[in-house]
Amino acid sequence: MKHLLGIEDLTGDHINDLVTLAVSLKSERGKYGSRPLENQTWGMIFSKSSTRTRVSFEVGVYELGGRPLFLNSNDIQLGRGEPIKDTARVLGRMVHGCIIRTYDQQDVVDFANYSGIPTINALTDEEHPCQILADLLTIHEKLGTWEGKKVVFFGDGDCNMGRSWAWAAKRLGFDLTIAAPPEFQPQAEFMNRLGEAPVTITDDAEAAARDADVLYTDTWISMGKEAEAEQRLKTLAPYQINHDLLKLANSGAIVQHCLPAYRDKELSEALLEERASEIFDQAENRLHAQKAVLVRLAEDHLNV
Amino acid sequence: MKHLLGIEDLTGDHINDLVTLAVSLKSERGKYGSRPLENQTWGMIFSKSSTRTRVSFEVGVYELGGRPLFLNSNDIQLGRGEPIKDTARVLGRMVHGCIIRTYDQQDVVDFANYSGIPTINALTDEEHPCQILADLLTIHEKLGTWEGKKVVFFGDGDCNMGRSWAWAAKRLGFDLTIAAPPEFQPQAEFMNRLGEAPVTITDDAEAAARDADVLYTDTWISMGKEAEAEQRLKTLAPYQINHDLLKLANSGAIVQHCLPAYRDKELSEALLEERASEIFDQAENRLHAQKAVLVRLAEDHLNV
Amino acid sequence: MKHLLGIEDLTGDHINDLVTLAVSLKSERGKYGSRPLENQTWGMIFSKSSTRTRVSFEVGVYELGGRPLFLNSNDIQLGRGEPIKDTARVLGRMVHGCIIRTYDQQDVVDFANYSGIPTINALTDEEHPCQILADLLTIHEKLGTWEGKKVVFFGDGDCNMGRSWAWAAKRLGFDLTIAAPPEFQPQAEFMNRLGEAPVTITDDAEAAARDADVLYTDTWISMGKEAEAEQRLKTLAPYQINHDLLKLANSGAIVQHCLPAYRDKELSEALLEERASEIFDQAENRLHAQKAVLVRLAEDHLNV
Repeated sequence: MKHLLGIEDLTGDHINDLVTLAVSLKSERGKYGSRPLENQTWGMIFSKSSTRTRVSFEVGVYELGGRPLFLNSNDIQLGRGEPIKDTARVLGRMVHGCIIRTYDQQDVVDFANYSGIPTINALTDEEHPCQILADLLTIHEKLGTWEGKKVVFFGDGDCNMGRSWAWAAKRLGFDLTIAAPPEFQPQAEFMNRLGEAPVTITDDAEAAARDADVLYTDTWISMGKEAEAEQRLKTLAPYQINHDLLKLANSGAIVQHCLPAYRDKELSEALLEERASEIFDQAENRLHAQKAVLVRLAEDHLNV
Repeated sequence: MKHLLGIEDLTGDHINDLVTLAVSLKSERGKYGSRPLENQTWGMIFSKSSTRTRVSFEVGVYELGGRPLFLNSNDIQLGRGEPIKDTARVLGRMVHGCIIRTYDQQDVVDFANYSGIPTINALTDEEHPCQILADLLTIHEKLGTWEGKKVVFFGDGDCNMGRSWAWAAKRLGFDLTIAAPPEFQPQAEFMNRLGEAPVTITDDAEAAARDADVLYTDTWISMGKEAEAEQRLKTLAPYQINHDLLKLANSGAIVQHCLPAYRDKELSEALLEERASEIFDQAENRLHAQKAVLVRLAEDHLNV
Repeated sequence: MKHLLGIEDLTGDHINDLVTLAVSLKSERGKYGSRPLENQTWGMIFSKSSTRTRVSFEVGVYELGGRPLFLNSNDIQLGRGEPIKDTARVLGRMVHGCIIRTYDQQDVVDFANYSGIPTINALTDEEHPCQILADLLTIHEKLGTWEGKKVVFFGDGDCNMGRSWAWAAKRLGFDLTIAAPPEFQPQAEFMNRLGEAPVTITDDAEAAARDADVLYTDTWISMGKEAEAEQRLKTLAPYQINHDLLKLANSGAIVQHCLPAYRDKELSEALLEERASEIFDQAENRLHAQKAVLVRLAEDHLNV
């Protein structure tokens, strides 16, 4: 694995290996282990601010022996002022890897190609692979396996999270249902590209919740979408995860939210607080899953 | 000591221990000592910018073997977008302690409660305990002890510095005089909460300066108060520390200013430059006092 | 060497020593060497943002065992709010050296004088010594030596880069030609201060290119000069480095650009991409040259 640009690019074996490694890194956290990033600096280029992604990567790089170097959109404007290929060629000489959170997937792809250093997609409009790896780690911890499980994503399915979940279902073979109103369902172009996959799309939230093992949602009002907020809230309201929906799911079903959570919008406050421990375990797992990615990228870069 | 939220929460023993430890850390600076924060990341959430507080904590965490992770108000808006209790629960899983500079004391208290990690108040509208610990270290260095000494705080006494000084006087038993015009004296509500304490409030700057051992002031125009500047400067003018006032004090009295200093406002330029060495010693002592706090919090967190 | 404030302040021996050390640090990069900045924090005060300068210094300090502490103009406004001499006196107690990128050379000089710690000019309106040291390292690598070589700087010669190149030519004795339209030639006041030096000023780009060994340019539209952009582009157009100009140079001549590069403005896109490897080698050499500066400043500070 040279880069982590999307779940689309991974095989099932890659994913299994990363989750297994994450489990082991989690159990060893705080003990003195190997430091595969010793003497390395990893750039972090963030076009949007993000507490969780930022903190988990800064801590992860540091705990593996390296140094994170955070650059926000004031420090460096990816693709403005200077072409990405020049920024990539300069940084590729100075830092040992790069973690990028930006809008256009192509920018991350170009950076990876021109820099020659391991590059991680820490969220683009296209995919959010790090979150999915953390989620798979959480499912592994809570349910033992994702095999034979039914994961249901409620809300805006036509987004990076929906797409990354779909690729995960395809690569690993578990059942994914995306429950969303028609205008928030994955687009035909994407479904064509995805091809054959165990993915069901429906606008019936209750049908989706039936026999679910994982009820998953994401904020409905992402950064940059505040203008459309009122219309989105109205259309998406029937897809709120709450106790009524949970009753339809399998006993033992877990509730997941990739945060930040807006109370009584995509998730009821009562259920959020009742399931806080599994939701904040999920947040913590960003750290462990990303450390696994960092370890594998650093190793594989050495072995080129 | 699980947290440092205010001088109010400390006992005299805590304070004595912290100052003693700070003396020792200062004398050992630069030598290879223990690294109690090894492998730890400490978050620094700053809603207001601050050179001194920021640099002293970043250096302190690093010199104790840890890594500071600075987040400013663009990176993380405490209490906006996401409730503090969620931010606290996420960060509590990822970082090992947190240093917070913000407005509302309740935000720091909530963060401490929900995160479960050692939390330091690096200035709120209510208290500024780190500055007071640095000041006590300076008094210890320059005067040998605070016992039997008279500390006089000139200027705006109805602020975090005035309150933290009052709690220090109560906990340690030294004489504190706050010399301020009536509208800048500590409010009755606070004095009731403080209860019995060796604290004198006066509007007579000269009476206050008589027999003083420490003449202390703070900027009159803190961040956020620029609008009222003209009126404040006029009302507070008689409380300027200068050579005339110093003549009334005990011989051997020291002049202290927690910086930034506005020349010929709260402190005359002549006296500032004459006493620069003791004022910049005081600034340096932020580093040593805060390192003592970090050491004790890290130790006590391990022993829970 | 106590500080690096400008090439003007260095002797030829200093420069030779720094380039020699940079060569050795470059060849040893990534191997475990000495860590002369162990336990040290180096402040980085940047009044303007800059990817290359920032990343190269952050990585350099870290690879020498220290910790960079980046402060931008929101974090600290050099000379605003607080006089530089106060900021310098505070930081001088806390950090072990300081790297400053700002406008006024006097600010860097004052900081050096009042802080008492090693201070590096990472670009002012007056000089850009770190870039020149990187360039000399590149010339040493590509051409073996600068002795007997002809360096030509094309474009706006009345700027920090033009001045730093002129001092380098004077200190080291190589031939420098500055090819610029009259209004962009070094001013008489500067040439008087420079005194006798092997520096030729001309407005004839072709004459300048003849027998050149190094064709060097810089962006014509620096930060803060966007308003005059149109006029500058028109006046400077004949000084573009391109294949036509390169034909006049010595065989083996190298093309250098200190980046960011604006295609088909100061450098043709075709030539930029053809010579990308030597241009990005030059960018990388910022890292190695600056590490040499850091090593010498840290050593010489210990020996005071």
